[in-house]
Amino acid sequence: MKLYLNDWAPSPRRVVLYLAEKGISVDRQTIDLGTNEHLSPEFLGINPRGTLPALILDDGTCLTESVAICRYFEALYPAPALFGAMPHEVALVEEWIRRVEQEGYAACSYALRNSASMFHDRALPNAVLPIPQIPALVERGQIMWSGFLGTLEKRLAQNTWLAGDHFSFADIVALTTVDFARVARLPAPEGPATVAWRAAITARTAPPRSGSRASG
Amino acid sequence: MKLYLNDWAPSPRRVVLYLAEKGISVDRQTIDLGTNEHLSPEFLGINPRGTLPALILDDGTCLTESVAICRYFEALYPAPALFGAMPHEVALVEEWIRRVEQEGYAACSYALRNSASMFHDRALPNAVLPIPQIPALVERGQIMWSGFLGTLEKRLAQNTWLAGDHFSFADIVALTTVDFARVARLPAPEGPATVAWRAAITARTAPPRSGSRASG
Repeated sequence: MKLYLNDWAPSPRRVVLYLAEKGISVDRQTIDLGTNEHLSPEFLGINPRGTLPALILDDGTCLTESVAICRYFEALYPAPALFGAMPHEVALVEEWIRRVEQEGYAACSYALRNSASMFHDRALPNAVLPIPQIPALVERGQIMWSGFLGTLEKRLAQNTWLAGDHFSFADIVALTTVDFARVARLPAPEGPATVAWRAAITARTAPPRSGSRASG
Repeated sequence: MKLYLNDWAPSPRRVVLYLAEKGISVDRQTIDLGTNEHLSPEFLGINPRGTLPALILDDGTCLTESVAICRYFEALYPAPALFGAMPHEVALVEEWIRRVEQEGYAACSYALRNSASMFHDRALPNAVLPIPQIPALVERGQIMWSGFLGTLEKRLAQNTWLAGDHFSFADIVALTTVDFARVARLPAPEGPATVAWRAAITARTAPPRSGSRASG
């Protein structure tokens, strides 16, 4: 089993934070997004999607989705549960992973991928297919981000963690998204509940945070 | 517990097909997307996102994401497993749910939501926030859809079901997406493996199929 990743891009960073929280060690190899190593023939031979993270299982299966990779480890090592334990927790973790992705992560991705020159023909994160940029999506991303920050603040004003009483993978997805916003030139959350949540989750995570470079 | 849904829109239809496959009965209420009942003050009081499906638990928790709703039932009634049983199956179901959503469902959503007049200020499915249409996304959706049909055919030429040997929720997500394409004016799959898979999965599902009306 081998994990290909990068420490600062938001999707691989979800896996880094998840593994740290679970205390799981895996053979890793860093792929340099800055030199487009993820688009090299050698890496495309490993993961044809050209995306990070990628986990190669011992039978050769290639997992390319951060949530699929983390659910694989969760099935192997259920405790502590980061995808919920009781049915209503399982449901709320999934609910909030998806809300963060659709309303927040998508906003960042729209804003960054449709403006930065390095993505001029790669406006979608998970496509080897050339996709031209659409500048109007930057504005859509800004509208969505504003709505998302309101949703996040309202939720965190009433709950310690996104899915309720327990820290979960939904918090990891939200933290990597909020940290990613700066790269996408979107404002940081300023609501008091979100600021306190961000400080609490950042304090418990040892690995380096993203934010200094654009995501691949 | 009460489930609010609609039989033909793709996201609620995922839940309809999942419940039929599992043989689970739930108290249901149909919401009329054609008359914008999902945007009425009464329904927004139940689900402030104004989306379908929505499941209200006995403690008042409102689940609004189709996958969260199905994972809730899966946690209550694990057999037969539609989200995978062994760790590598769990991972591959998640992997393919996400690939279908990002590459196929997003393509349909881009194409429909940014062209149909009924969505002129609701270009995002899960936003009460007004979002103007971007006509260029129709073309992006067409490019993505073409790539997705190739990915689907390649996968199904080598596997009976999307996640491998077992029928799973990933197949339900893919079927509702492929059926949804007609509404979004995107071509039906013509690859022989995809056509055979579609016939096989359609044959095992009793509930009505979508395709006759636009999604809300």
